[in-house]
Order: sequence, then structure tokens, then C-alpha cells
Amino acid sequence: VTDTFCIGLDWGASNLRAYRMDCDGHVLEARASADGVKTVACHAWEEALRRVAGDWLEHAPKAIIVLSGMVGSRNGWIEIPYVAAPADPAAIAGGCQRAYLSDGRPIWFAPGVSTLDRDGVPDVMRGEETQIIGLPTQARHTVCLPGTHSKWATVEHGAILGFSTYFTGELFELLARHSIVGSLIVDGPFDRDAYLDGVRRAGQAGHLLHHIFGARALTVTGGLAPEHLSSYLSGLLIGHEIAAALAMEPGHDVTILGSQQLCELYAIALSESGVSAQIGDLDAAAIGQFRIAQSLMARP
Amino acid sequence: VTDTFCIGLDWGASNLRAYRMDCDGHVLEARASADGVKTVACHAWEEALRRVAGDWLEHAPKAIIVLSGMVGSRNGWIEIPYVAAPADPAAIAGGCQRAYLSDGRPIWFAPGVSTLDRDGVPDVMRGEETQIIGLPTQARHTVCLPGTHSKWATVEHGAILGFSTYFTGELFELLARHSIVGSLIVDGPFDRDAYLDGVRRAGQAGHLLHHIFGARALTVTGGLAPEHLSSYLSGLLIGHEIAAALAMEPGHDVTILGSQQLCELYAIALSESGVSAQIGDLDAAAIGQFRIAQSLMARP
Repeated sequence: VTDTFCIGLDWGASNLRAYRMDCDGHVLEARASADGVKTVACHAWEEALRRVAGDWLEHAPKAIIVLSGMVGSRNGWIEIPYVAAPADPAAIAGGCQRAYLSDGRPIWFAPGVSTLDRDGVPDVMRGEETQIIGLPTQARHTVCLPGTHSKWATVEHGAILGFSTYFTGELFELLARHSIVGSLIVDGPFDRDAYLDGVRRAGQAGHLLHHIFGARALTVTGGLAPEHLSSYLSGLLIGHEIAAALAMEPGHDVTILGSQQLCELYAIALSESGVSAQIGDLDAAAIGQFRIAQSLMARP
Repeated sequence: VTDTFCIGLDWGASNLRAYRMDCDGHVLEARASADGVKTVACHAWEEALRRVAGDWLEHAPKAIIVLSGMVGSRNGWIEIPYVAAPADPAAIAGGCQRAYLSDGRPIWFAPGVSTLDRDGVPDVMRGEETQIIGLPTQARHTVCLPGTHSKWATVEHGAILGFSTYFTGELFELLARHSIVGSLIVDGPFDRDAYLDGVRRAGQAGHLLHHIFGARALTVTGGLAPEHLSSYLSGLLIGHEIAAALAMEPGHDVTILGSQQLCELYAIALSESGVSAQIGDLDAAAIGQFRIAQSLMARP
């Protein structure tokens, strides 16, 4: 393991992924742990880090250690200010802050990225920026990171120009768990037709607020099977998100980055809108951390 | 009390309002009870009815008794099918169903009203129809009934032509109580400026899904005081509802019918959209029940 150039930790709210990389940016080894920022007890950050990557640290004493994600938030290890978009790997490296482990070894925390939408309202990401800058560099394209708070970023030659966050995943959970619509849901396997009905509904007249109630009315009046309601709601919310995101930034290649299941859902809905999408490599975070490490080496 | 022509019960999910009316439709007496459909235990419907209006029944043995609202739903006393819009008082009376109290006295349950939106998706109301047909008759106008599931109806010469439901009130509760946005709320008095900021935000680029996350980002980055977040979210959701409803049915007089507090909120937001609104009489339900009773008398 003498060829370890950097160790990257993509440390989110609910899990932690660790990568060991060589000086060409190849991932030599990858590990995952359930020690998410929300679950690390009593600020036992260093213990959690050593649990997942202690042997790597020991065997590669000179490797650069880069941490990205919610570990750098107010509820994480230390809070790192956001850098403002546009942000490329060098700008993100410029916003990194150094801290030290108990044995004096330096570790680097990546900042999140902030932006203002066209009306001056702020938006923020923390962790996604490292995934985005790890994608293959190309001309202007759009990166979609579906999830609890989905992000749509406009990226050009490796720089994040701007982005918008959508409350889609959390709203789905709220509706499914706590609402009068969700109370009608009967568990069942994913139903592609119902999902597509929801996606198409998003393109019809009315508004999300009307369409949500309509999902209930449709189910109560027998037009939608309770076993299909969850798939329909998923399509409805994702359809709204995609329509809104494409309206903000139309006509570019879309790369989707996320869990395989979510990526497939988004690809189906994008295809329904006539947009072909490619699914990005989930280990993009590792490449992003590698690029940050390279920039850190180049810092004066 | 010999002049009681009809007794109306506007019996919703969480409360019950009772009216005693003369043959000119004047309300002689009004009462309220907390015996909502959700809280009446063990199907003790008749007991609840007699608790609020037993003496009226006794003293006016010939008065027509009309019940409207969720009491006629699947979870109510008996389930009454919806009548399809367009629906005027005669059509609603035509959909009434008779039942009998334990002493053989007839009571009449008003139906709800159903409609299909332009894309064929069903929508339903139960209780609101009786309020709407109790408003002063006029040429084509719009009636807004804000609440958990706000209704916007197009009404012409006393007939409900169609309507749309918006999930606004319930979404506000979900966000305030269960979401990562609501977790930032600090209690405070209603703030008109923050409310108007939310209303204006609804008119900006993006989408509700983006604007909801923006409320969090704005608060976290210091652009919105946590004490004002609840007012802002209220304005944001109501602003979206109003914009959507006016897009579906623009340019008509709007009558708002609901609690004084909600009516004032909606009037402020409508005024911001350049629409002047009048606030309707909350006892419109009584007049609606009176009109149904008149039509029932005229039934062959």
C-alpha cells in the first residue's frame, strides 16, 4: 500500500464512504460504513474515521486525507464556510480547511458550495460538489443528483456554474408517512405504468398542490389502485422536479448521479420528457476528492 | 319556536354547527359543538345530533332536517354518493338521501359534489357545496374556501360549474411539524412582511419544490429570521395556490369563505396579485341548507 496518494471520505448524514487512491486517481480500495454524521455519538469523529480507514492511515502516513459532505457542516466535525459558485476544483481546494488528528496528522475538510438563484435567494450544497467535480470534464452540461433534496447543477469544463435544490425526496416521505394521501397507500412492488401516469400528470394543467390532492381523489374514486399510489406519487413529484429543472436550464446533456434505483427512476421520467440521460459513476466523489488533493498539493 | 321551517347541521370532520331557520331563510338560532365526525364515538350519531339540537327537534316536529358535510362520507353516519357538477341547489337536493331517527323522524343527508378537471382527473367536495350555494346569487364568480384542502369553485347563478382542490393547508402542517424546514421554525407572532415575502417568492422563477428548500437556505444563511419562517412559508404556499387557481380561472370576482384569520391571509395575498376579494358570510352553510330544504319541499 505504499502507492496511496490520498484517502477520501465522502461523509454524509447517514453514511460514510472511504476511498484509497493512487497518484493517477485510481481507486485502489473502497469501503462503506453506517457511521453517518447523524449517528456518530458524542462527537467521536476520529474514532469513526479510524474504524473505517485506520489501517490505511497507518500504512500510508503521507497520504493526503480529504473529507467532504455533511461532516463539514454545523452538525458535523467542524463547520466549513461555503465557497460561492462558480466553483472548480481549485476554488473548492482553496476553501478547504485543515484540522489535525490526535496524533498531529493533518486532515482537510472540503467546503460546500453556495449560489444565488436569479431572484437572489441562496441555495447550498455540501458533498454533492465533490461528486460533481469528479465527473469526466466536458462542455456545458447538467448534473442531476436525486435524493432527499435533489440538486440540479449546471457544469462547464469541471466548474459548477450554479445549481437549484428541490425538496422532492423529503416531500415524498412526508406525504407517504404523514399525510391523508399517504394513508391510502397499500404496499406493493414498483409499478412502471403508475409511475409514468404520475410523471405525465405533472405535465398537465393545475399545480403540484392540486395534483397531490388529485392523487387522493383518484384513489378514493377507484381510478388508481392503492397498491400503485406510491409509484404514482413518486412519478408525480419527480415529474414536477424535472419539468422545473429543465425549465431553468433547458437543452443540455443530463448526467444523473445517485443510487441505481433513483437514477433509473429519473432516467425513465427524463426519457418521457424527450431528454436522454447518462448515469454517472457513483465513485465520482472519489475522483472529486482526488482532484481536490491535487489542488491542495499545488497550493503555495 | 313554532316558526322553525328547517334545521340544518353543517357537520364536518372536526366540528358541528347547527342552525334553526324560519321559512324566509333567516337564522333564528345557531349553535356549535365539538362533536366532529372524527370524534363521535361508537357511531353515536343520533345522540350527538340530539345533544346539540334535541330541544329544537322536540319543539318543531315538522321542521325539515338537513345534514351536510363529512357526516355523509364513508367515515360518517351514512355514505351519500356525490352528484356531478354542474350542480345547483335543486341538483343537490335531488342527490339528498333520507334516513330516519330512532323515533321514525326523517332526516336528509346532502350529497357532496364531484367534478373532473380538464384532464379527466376527479375532484370532490363534501360540505363546501352547501356553503357555496348559500352565497348571494350572482353572475359568474369564483369562490375560494381556504383550509386543509382549499377549494376554488367557479359559480354562476347559484350553480357550481366546477372546482379544484389544493393541498395547501395540509402541506403547511406537514412542513411545519415534520420537515427539516419546519425544524428551524421559532414561534413568533404573524409577520406581515415575511408573509408577503413568501407570497412574492411564489411568483418568482423556480417551482414550489425549489422554493420550499429555499426557505430553509434563506433561514440557515441569515436572510430570514426563524421567528418569521412560519409566516413566510404560509405566504409561499398560499401564494402558489392563488397563482395556480387564478391561472385556471382568471379575471373573476373572488369571494373567500372560511375562518376570519384565513380569509384575511388570502385577501392580503390576492390583493398582492391585484385581485380584490370579498369575504363571504360563514353562515352561508345555513342558507345553503335552507335552499336544499326548499328544493326538497318541491320534490314530487
